[in-house]
Amino acid sequence: MDKELKKVNQNELNPHVSVDCVIFGFDMEKLTVLLIDRGRNKSDKGIKLALPGNLIYNNENLDQAANRVLDELTGLKDIYLEQVAAFGNPDRISKDSDREWLKSIRAEPEARVITVAYFSLVKMPDYLPQASSFAKRAGWTSVTEINELAFDHYEILQAAKEKLKQKIKIQPIGFNLLPEKFTLSQLHRLYESILEKPLDKRNFRRKIQNLEIVTSLKEKQRGVPHKPSQLFVFNEERYRELTENGFDNFDF
Amino acid sequence: MDKELKKVNQNELNPHVSVDCVIFGFDMEKLTVLLIDRGRNKSDKGIKLALPGNLIYNNENLDQAANRVLDELTGLKDIYLEQVAAFGNPDRISKDSDREWLKSIRAEPEARVITVAYFSLVKMPDYLPQASSFAKRAGWTSVTEINELAFDHYEILQAAKEKLKQKIKIQPIGFNLLPEKFTLSQLHRLYESILEKPLDKRNFRRKIQNLEIVTSLKEKQRGVPHKPSQLFVFNEERYRELTENGFDNFDF
Repeated sequence: MDKELKKVNQNELNPHVSVDCVIFGFDMEKLTVLLIDRGRNKSDKGIKLALPGNLIYNNENLDQAANRVLDELTGLKDIYLEQVAAFGNPDRISKDSDREWLKSIRAEPEARVITVAYFSLVKMPDYLPQASSFAKRAGWTSVTEINELAFDHYEILQAAKEKLKQKIKIQPIGFNLLPEKFTLSQLHRLYESILEKPLDKRNFRRKIQNLEIVTSLKEKQRGVPHKPSQLFVFNEERYRELTENGFDNFDF
Repeated sequence: MDKELKKVNQNELNPHVSVDCVIFGFDMEKLTVLLIDRGRNKSDKGIKLALPGNLIYNNENLDQAANRVLDELTGLKDIYLEQVAAFGNPDRISKDSDREWLKSIRAEPEARVITVAYFSLVKMPDYLPQASSFAKRAGWTSVTEINELAFDHYEILQAAKEKLKQKIKIQPIGFNLLPEKFTLSQLHRLYESILEKPLDKRNFRRKIQNLEIVTSLKEKQRGVPHKPSQLFVFNEERYRELTENGFDNFDF
């Protein structure tokens, strides 16, 4: 095989494999997700909003591709991304409006593409998305307000939400969505919005305090229009201890 | 675009995407996994054993591909397969011995392939593997005896083992590996082999009995060379109850 040719191919986009990123945030009221606006196509039809995603290069692995694509489309860098699943329905990119849009950006718009979805949790104030490449705009949208997305991205979002729901039951990952100092009401609201159900406030507080996963500060909220609440920080040492020993009944 | 051409392409193998299956069993002593023997290549080098896997067709989804490939290589049908993860290291199929073998079976042996790994748990006696297609032989191997596999299959196996380990801590999925009637010693041995550590027998029995997840039968083992033990069955109703209400501390 021609080595020069092989080298060139390695630096090319693989027309059959893409990555898509589900980046969750929390605006202190609702769970949010980072979406890009890919703009209207010529016929002014079709769905504008999509998860940040694109084809992989032949010389990068899937994790690298996810990080690169996220950076290229939204400016978010150095984020820990975890795989959700691969999505490979043969019809996943075949809606007319999606095809129209693909024709405007891809060399082989008719190629079958399977996508590997990633997810991450970020502290919203730390990341101000900056759209570039084919993204006209990038920004946070409340998850409950989303009814449709481009391609199979709505399905991917549901799978990522489900993964987050399962994960928060066995690991206190929700703390990645909060600022360093937070109130128990904010933590309670976060769990409600991830689990998508109301949680009894007193039970919740008792459970969190029994787990000793938060430490209270000698400090209260400032500049709030209500009685300031006690602030807490996440106890990382206790988290590691719990992770090693397991939280659940089935960890013998 | 020529519709006839498109149709033909749909029925072709996609040279860039494969599926691989990690099928776990339990021989009442050890955790086992289903491997195929792909035979020696001409130079008589290289690793013979591999997970059952192959390229996907362009007209099937990933779950369908996994089921078809498993059936084609091992004769196992109608098994519930769950995704582990996608593996996409650019070098994952580039070992010389693997390339030699790929040249003998694939139209585009140099193409980059990403693979989607699936896993499942089966009751060993229900499935006698029957090799066909490019598998010379198919059979169960004890997981602890495996030191290397073809391609990145050893890495995939480790990821599937880790997934199983995490899953058995929150769901009693181990029962899928046992016959309908089993002893508590067999269940104990199963958990030890999945979690890869000794578990105190009395603690284990107490936990299992507190969970009320097994029901004792008025029946004992027969034809065993030791004092026959009490037989149990898995309590599916109680399992559903536990699954709905959650096992763990973080399920509010």
